[in-house]
Amino acid sequence: MKRDDFDTWSLGELDTVESALDACVPADAPAGLGDAMRYAVLDGGKRLRPLLVLAAANAVHGGRAGALRAACAVELIHAYSLVHDDLPCMDDDVLRRGKPTVHVRFGVAQAMLAGDAMQALAFEVLTPDDGSVDASLQARLCALLARAAGGAGMAGGQAIDLASVGRPLDEQALSDMHRRKTGALLRASVLMGAACGRTNAPQWQALSDYGDAVGLAFQVVDDILDVTQASATLGKTAGKDLDNNKPTYVTVLGLDAARAHAEALREAARVALDRSGLADAGQLRILADRVVDRDS
Amino acid sequence: MKRDDFDTWSLGELDTVESALDACVPADAPAGLGDAMRYAVLDGGKRLRPLLVLAAANAVHGGRAGALRAACAVELIHAYSLVHDDLPCMDDDVLRRGKPTVHVRFGVAQAMLAGDAMQALAFEVLTPDDGSVDASLQARLCALLARAAGGAGMAGGQAIDLASVGRPLDEQALSDMHRRKTGALLRASVLMGAACGRTNAPQWQALSDYGDAVGLAFQVVDDILDVTQASATLGKTAGKDLDNNKPTYVTVLGLDAARAHAEALREAARVALDRSGLADAGQLRILADRVVDRDS
Repeated sequence: MKRDDFDTWSLGELDTVESALDACVPADAPAGLGDAMRYAVLDGGKRLRPLLVLAAANAVHGGRAGALRAACAVELIHAYSLVHDDLPCMDDDVLRRGKPTVHVRFGVAQAMLAGDAMQALAFEVLTPDDGSVDASLQARLCALLARAAGGAGMAGGQAIDLASVGRPLDEQALSDMHRRKTGALLRASVLMGAACGRTNAPQWQALSDYGDAVGLAFQVVDDILDVTQASATLGKTAGKDLDNNKPTYVTVLGLDAARAHAEALREAARVALDRSGLADAGQLRILADRVVDRDS
Repeated sequence: MKRDDFDTWSLGELDTVESALDACVPADAPAGLGDAMRYAVLDGGKRLRPLLVLAAANAVHGGRAGALRAACAVELIHAYSLVHDDLPCMDDDVLRRGKPTVHVRFGVAQAMLAGDAMQALAFEVLTPDDGSVDASLQARLCALLARAAGGAGMAGGQAIDLASVGRPLDEQALSDMHRRKTGALLRASVLMGAACGRTNAPQWQALSDYGDAVGLAFQVVDDILDVTQASATLGKTAGKDLDNNKPTYVTVLGLDAARAHAEALREAARVALDRSGLADAGQLRILADRVVDRDS
């Protein structure tokens, strides 16, 4: 796949996902809750997870309706996790996607409720009653998303993160944390896309390995950018992890080794895609590059 | 159904639900998260929602595996909502089910994460991959639970609650708040049980009306108990709503009219069950009585 074709595809999909999110986050949730949810979800973010869902669905020639709902659902979970992660009791951050964080704008209690409602909404989006998505696919998507979001996945990773402030972690422990905290949802994005079509067991495993590598690469690069980029470029507070005395790939490995690690993970993602034998995995291939080569 | 038979049934089911919850909330979620989740869920609570699920499933001769999972899932959602509701940014409560609240015991951040993980776990519980529950039922249960928990339901009700502190609400607005905040999940408990078996459209509507009446009755009685019972009896801080300057059925209607309202809702629940024509609704009938007649 050519880079230009990828860019055309991804720009189109970003528009589609934005419209779909706009349609599914209700403005009329009561007492300002809808406003807080929309503020948290719309007009921001790289939408990497939705693109992974849609690219994986394309790789397996998956159905469109399920894939688009899965794309919105993973983004809702991601967005809710950012809202809760930014709260004063967690990272206490005031800037996200270049805007004041949700709790700065709407208050701490409303931010927490908006996150809670966004998590529920993700599962609502996955279970339409209009016949557009097979019930068996709905159940499969809910299963994948719930496991990635919960105690064994994202929430568990955040608990480790919370407990690791000021403590030295070795690379193994750091990887375990990030495999859960960010990796699980990124891998689930790939697998939810894959669930929309047909795969055999080795292909499923290859896509899982691809998602695992991309998920970890994403965090390694995040840690690199946290020390090499300004807040204005990132749209969030740079240098935050260092200030918070949190272990990162850069503090554990050093900057050069962290960069080399990101390259190794890019290669692992490529190898996994090759192993899948899927002919139409070009979008996934370029997405892995974008994750590693991004500057914000 | 005789009261004794009901008591035998409910005691047995409470044991079963406790064991099922014990099995589904993992002790090994990392960094103490599992401990916080188990503390929040196990050894406490009236388990009204699980009993409603199981009673409704019995009324429609529903499958056991799905009903038991639904019972655990609604309780997980309920328990998570209590954890978040007790946080300092919300009700700032220190006592729940006769024990220190989760954030008092485990810290605010861990309590928030435990609640988040419990919500995800509810959907994980509903989507087993062992073939024990039909995929179409899994999807239906997720759909019902997500809608009850989200912005149009429980989380939305909490947002109204948050916005209503110190403001006069009329009975209509108060009912709207409680229909969402507590009523939606209680009604969903009934409907999730009903989804485990066969119902026609009028029966479904009758069970929905029953759930609606019981849900509202529960809150009216809660408001009455808040002013008539001591903290020790309730296992939570009594007089809390008054202290927080929150509108309740007692402040809006007065104590006598609140009691009369609870009786009217009990009658509405009975009428709905009669209308359903379901021969085996005896457990649901007694549960409505227990909701109105309880003293804690």
